This record gives sequence, structure tokens and C-alpha cells, in this order.
Amino acid sequence: MIVNKIIFLRHGESEWNKKNCFTGWYDINLSEKGQDEAKLAGQVLKQEGWYFDYAFTSVLKRAIQSLEIILDVLDQSWLPIEKSWQLNERHYGALQGMKKNEMTNKYGLEKIKQWRRGWNYIPPALKNQYEKFSGHDFRYTYLNNFPLTESLELTSRRVIAYWKEVIFPRFKLGQSIIITAHGNSLRALLKYLNYLTANDIIYVTIPTGIPIVYEFTKDFQPTRYYYLFNVSQ
Amino acid sequence: MIVNKIIFLRHGESEWNKKNCFTGWYDINLSEKGQDEAKLAGQVLKQEGWYFDYAFTSVLKRAIQSLEIILDVLDQSWLPIEKSWQLNERHYGALQGMKKNEMTNKYGLEKIKQWRRGWNYIPPALKNQYEKFSGHDFRYTYLNNFPLTESLELTSRRVIAYWKEVIFPRFKLGQSIIITAHGNSLRALLKYLNYLTANDIIYVTIPTGIPIVYEFTKDFQPTRYYYLFNVSQ
Repeated sequence: MIVNKIIFLRHGESEWNKKNCFTGWYDINLSEKGQDEAKLAGQVLKQEGWYFDYAFTSVLKRAIQSLEIILDVLDQSWLPIEKSWQLNERHYGALQGMKKNEMTNKYGLEKIKQWRRGWNYIPPALKNQYEKFSGHDFRYTYLNNFPLTESLELTSRRVIAYWKEVIFPRFKLGQSIIITAHGNSLRALLKYLNYLTANDIIYVTIPTGIPIVYEFTKDFQPTRYYYLFNVSQ
Repeated sequence: MIVNKIIFLRHGESEWNKKNCFTGWYDINLSEKGQDEAKLAGQVLKQEGWYFDYAFTSVLKRAIQSLEIILDVLDQSWLPIEKSWQLNERHYGALQGMKKNEMTNKYGLEKIKQWRRGWNYIPPALKNQYEKFSGHDFRYTYLNNFPLTESLELTSRRVIAYWKEVIFPRFKLGQSIIITAHGNSLRALLKYLNYLTANDIIYVTIPTGIPIVYEFTKDFQPTRYYYLFNVSQ
């Protein structure tokens, strides 16, 4: 049976995952552990004979660094990489930079859980696009509507549009593709591909640094996904 | 006076620069010194306020790694990068992997100097495109005429075609551009931009890891270039 496969990867642990902060569009480096996670992901992909034709990533460096490390391990640094804000993490609005436990104390566990896991809950917005961004951020200058906060549903709109318009057409050409992105941009994608409900998606969390193999039929219908290895391995 | 500027950079020292081997299309990592050179180049570019809209590199990892390091220092990892074989180092044919002093003993100083510095001297060719390349090399599969050796003149043809068709049109749009490439692909470019003769180019060598600022008039006529700093700095 011919199966078409694609690799999704949530970036390795970042400096702020470690500190347990809301990160969103804040542009934080991988931690050392995160770099090691990316290396391991690359090594397992290599062992399993993965070889790519094209790569996609967000414009946030924790995803870009993860991809660069993986391609280096695969000896595929020459691969074309398309970087897009549409694959960015969910914009977490005014929560960005705040500690998760402090926010839980302030807003209560239920509220935080809704913001983090729910589908249609919008965190408090930034006042303007310069708040909490250091200086100019030219990578977004061509964005007409810079988001000041996003629900997962709002994140999903831009992720799915990009999937349909850019990634999927290339995948259907038969290209072998790897996508490095973020917890919530990937949750949005899994919800769409798996026809999950707003309720189902609450229970989906994605670990850092472990490649997800998503299988499609030979006619490119999505079927199922699995993790390439267990964390405990 | 409005001046348009572009940055050219020869990658930092590679493992084979260190060993004094002919490298060509062999895909060798930066040495630690080479990584440091790239970091320094990034730091000076940052100090001088350089900020880029677009980056070009070859498909060889010593150039790609140099670029990735520089963009990381500039906090511009998100920049679009176009990787092209046309910016590759000159293909050194059967000399690839050979020590320069051994080849000098075998062929004589004059011959080696012609091959290394001259315009129209073609080193002995590889037997086929798989010789000296480890396994399949998918980055070149779409190349109809895989070169088996190149003179600087042959290198120049593909470099200048790429400059005219891809890089220069983007530069003329007003974009700020950085190009990381190789000793000979950059010599070819300097010869073209500076109207150098085949004799002039013999005396042009390009140090690793030092950004070249190339200035153009406001009408995008090439004028002159200078190094951003001295090695001794």
C-alpha cells in the first residue's frame, strides 16, 4: 500500500518553555536541552531513512533553529526552506512573557486552561503591535493586520489557509516535506486533518522535539499520525 | 549621495581550508575558527547597523553555516534565504580532496597557479558525477549538465547568469542583500562588476569571513568595493 507521509515537528524546548512562560510570538532561543532534542530528532529521522525535498518553518527562531539542526544531522542543509509567519505559534496577547503559574493565580485555573487549551477563548490583547516586541520587527512589516491576540480558532484560520494554499499543493506533487512549528499551530493542523471537534482538541498536547509522522492515503486523504519515538527512548 | 550597497562574504575557514586541500564542490563543515570568523562578521555587521531583506547562499554547507551564524547574530534568522548551486565554489574536478602541496609536487608550481588563479585553465575532470561524491546528491538531480570540472571562466558563466537573472533584479527593487559564497564564485563576480581582465583577476584573492561591501550608484552602476574590517582588527 502506497502511503504518503509528512513530518510535523514542534521545536525543541525553548528558554521560556523551561521558565514556564507564555511565549507566543516572542522570539526566544532554544535551550541547550532543546538543541539536544532537535539533534535526537534528526538522528532518528536519519536512522529511519527520511530524506526531504522541502522544508517549512515559522519565522520564530526556536522553530528555525530546530530545523537547521535537523537538516545538519541529515546532511541536508542545502534544502530549500520556506519561512512563514502563518506557521507561528499562537499569538498569546498580553499573556506573552508572563509566568503560567502567576497568571493562574491571577485569573484562576479554569480561565488559564480555557486560554491554553480551548478553541475559542481569546486572551487579553496587546495594546499595539510594538508592545512587547523589541524595536522594529521587519519580518512582519508587510502584515496588514498584525494580530494583538489570538484564540486557537484564529490561529487555525491562518495555519489552515497556508496549509491549503502553499504546503498541501507541494505535498501533492509528491515532495517529501518536513514542517517545524509550534504547539498550537500544530494543534490547529491536527484538528483540521483529523476532523477533531473544539472539545476534542482540548485534550491534545504536543511534546517538544518529537517528529510526528502524518500518513495520507495514496490519494492524499489524511488518515492517522504517530510519534516517531517515545520521550522515554 | 545615495549609494546602494550589497554584502558579499566568503564563508569562514572550512575543515579543508585548514588542511590546505582543494575543496570545490566537496561539502565540508566550517572549522571552529571558521565559525568564529562568521560570528565576528555578524558582530561587525550588527555594529555598523546592517539589516537585510534577503539572503543568497550556495548549496554548500560552509557558506550556509556562515550565513546562519551571521543571521543569528543579527537576530534575523527569519530572513528568506535562497540557496543556489550557481553560487557554489568552482568545481575543481579531479583536484578535489587533494592536498595543494602534493599537487604542486606532481604538476609543478606554475600549473597549479594557473589552475588556481588563472581564468581559462581547466583542471583534470572527474570521471563521472558520482566520483568523489558520497552517495546520491539530490541537491543536483535537476542539473542537466553536472560539471565534472570548471575553469574560473566556466564558473563565471553560471555565477553571472544567476547574478543577472536572480540577484540583481531583486537588488534593483531596493532590497538590502547579503550573499555568502566562495573564493572563486566571488572572484568571478568581482571580475564582472569591476571589468577586470583575465590578467587582473590572477591577483585577486578573497580572505575568509570578512564582509565585502560593494557600492553601486543610485542608478545601480557598480563603483567600488572595500572590506568591512581588516583581519588584524
